[in-house]
Amino acid sequence: MSWIHAEDLPDIAFGAAVLGTGGGGDPHIGQLMAAASIRSNGPVELIRLQDLHDDDLVVPVGMMGAPTVMLEKLPSGQEALLALQTLETHLGRKVRALLSVEAGGLNSTIPIGVASELGLPLVDADGMGRAFPELQMVVMTLHGVSATPMGMADEKGNAALLRTIDNRWTERLARTITIEMGGSSLTALYPMSGAQAKVATIPGTITLLADIGRSAREARQAHGDPVEAVRAVTGGFYLFKGKVRDVERRTVGGFARGVAVIEGLDTCAGQQCRLEFQNENLIATCDGEVLASVPDLITALDAESGEPITTETLRYGMRVVVIAMPCDPQWRSPAGLALVGPGYFGYDVPFVPVETRFPARSVGIELVGAG
Amino acid sequence: MSWIHAEDLPDIAFGAAVLGTGGGGDPHIGQLMAAASIRSNGPVELIRLQDLHDDDLVVPVGMMGAPTVMLEKLPSGQEALLALQTLETHLGRKVRALLSVEAGGLNSTIPIGVASELGLPLVDADGMGRAFPELQMVVMTLHGVSATPMGMADEKGNAALLRTIDNRWTERLARTITIEMGGSSLTALYPMSGAQAKVATIPGTITLLADIGRSAREARQAHGDPVEAVRAVTGGFYLFKGKVRDVERRTVGGFARGVAVIEGLDTCAGQQCRLEFQNENLIATCDGEVLASVPDLITALDAESGEPITTETLRYGMRVVVIAMPCDPQWRSPAGLALVGPGYFGYDVPFVPVETRFPARSVGIELVGAG
Repeated sequence: MSWIHAEDLPDIAFGAAVLGTGGGGDPHIGQLMAAASIRSNGPVELIRLQDLHDDDLVVPVGMMGAPTVMLEKLPSGQEALLALQTLETHLGRKVRALLSVEAGGLNSTIPIGVASELGLPLVDADGMGRAFPELQMVVMTLHGVSATPMGMADEKGNAALLRTIDNRWTERLARTITIEMGGSSLTALYPMSGAQAKVATIPGTITLLADIGRSAREARQAHGDPVEAVRAVTGGFYLFKGKVRDVERRTVGGFARGVAVIEGLDTCAGQQCRLEFQNENLIATCDGEVLASVPDLITALDAESGEPITTETLRYGMRVVVIAMPCDPQWRSPAGLALVGPGYFGYDVPFVPVETRFPARSVGIELVGAG
Repeated sequence: MSWIHAEDLPDIAFGAAVLGTGGGGDPHIGQLMAAASIRSNGPVELIRLQDLHDDDLVVPVGMMGAPTVMLEKLPSGQEALLALQTLETHLGRKVRALLSVEAGGLNSTIPIGVASELGLPLVDADGMGRAFPELQMVVMTLHGVSATPMGMADEKGNAALLRTIDNRWTERLARTITIEMGGSSLTALYPMSGAQAKVATIPGTITLLADIGRSAREARQAHGDPVEAVRAVTGGFYLFKGKVRDVERRTVGGFARGVAVIEGLDTCAGQQCRLEFQNENLIATCDGEVLASVPDLITALDAESGEPITTETLRYGMRVVVIAMPCDPQWRSPAGLALVGPGYFGYDVPFVPVETRFPARSVGIELVGAG
């Protein structure tokens, strides 16, 4: 795929929901926006990191805020242009290519629409390889890239430019502005040279999203097992199968926080899984034992269709299979774990890679075919 | 006075505290900063509005936040330069002259220090002719001048640039950023052409501040009545004389709100005055009857020294004379009253100019000489 057409979007959005680990906003909204933009402005060229010149200006664009708010306050499309224009005015130069700040959720498809609107290419890479709730949680931070200058805008036409002393301060100020803007905003941040982007991002993520969506779709068309197709293409592991018994949600400080309780079915019968989230799923436990945690990816899939389920659509009675996927190796470094490990989110547990933890558990592989 | 020297600052700061109507931050802090800057960088040229070329870029600079916070978090001086530089980068041009956003309090002296540091002249004018608690409350708003693009910065080195759809939105976003920055920030806003500044500001305010301070000082030196000197030079009216019995303060949403209760003395004996404030004094009542209200200026002066008393230093036992001064006529227009009248601050009373209301009251002129 060297061009993204409107018909590629459903697969990409499906993959984005899988890597969104329950958060990152509903990718279907971004899909609709991108489809409308592509219909008006044409397809988007997907370029590789190595296609960039070292002095190109590359900028990730994305939405900030609580997914629960985004469902009620649809972006107009103009705010991304305004955020980008605010940044370009400050830098005094034009952006050469866009990037997804995160591969998961809405923010994987938002840049496609913006790229089509502006006639700019999209780089096949992102800053997380998944979705994360806070702005500084990108591999760019690990490589010393500043989040600022950063442009941001709301759907009313308000815009802000930030320059901060570190990426945590960007998160603090941008978050408070986002809340005041009504709970969501569009952002253009982490401006990078092509040379920086080549080392400070995660390559190939848009292609991976499309692969995930296609695998699941082909499995469904062949009356196969779409859950297993998703697991296989992502190198994931089965954690739990069950029925959602309870979901508790609250929007706190611009985040959707909560916990889902899942009662085991089939080989998991008699067990209980707790899935805790802050926009994204953070940790899965079974009867008090940790199954997987951030930065590894934890996603609940519909047990029949393999459709990934966002934390805001999780509800009583859903039958789900919870899978975990290994995160990008950069997140498992000491600096990566300090930024996005379980400790940062308030869990006093050591990070254990899912592929290390998993063989010790009997639940899991047995689930194959049990869906 | 065509140059402001360090020795002019005490008079200016005194006048700023009078027009500060209890708020606007302690002008002595701004005085110390300005004095230090003038010692290092030389005096500041005070120019008249008519000295500006029509295409000059003129920018008011000032501090935003709760005065109670400012007392504990002294500005470093660098944040004003950073705020201004953020705005200049966006506009792509240099500022020709600075201006005080408000004549009252800290914000009358802050620009003097910044002007000295940058070697820029200060315009003898301001945006309020007093102090007000919110950013949109300047006569520039009445003339359709946008508060944005606006630069802002904190003492840690964080900076933001805002572009908003109206001045109320500037207030909302800048206020929330200021709170996140720790409760105060330095701002450069309402960028104007010289032509705009000539019609959309209040002329002569810095000279008035110096006149107020000099009158009071000369009265003290001549063992005269400094309270009467302040009243006379500001065209003010006596409202009440008494002893502070109670002060209630709380910091809410970045503002210092509260009320002072004053028990009458001398001709006011047996009466009780309530002085309600939100950073600035907003309304004075005597036994339930309104004596004066915003936008007219209400200031409490020490009954002996004539020193104006800020709302954050008002305390039990102080003997004060409360005076009211007519505001700039622009504030008494329907648009002015909609922006800063008693109704905006939640008081369901009509605005009556103090000079209209006063002759009907017996308290007042009798106070002359009773101090």
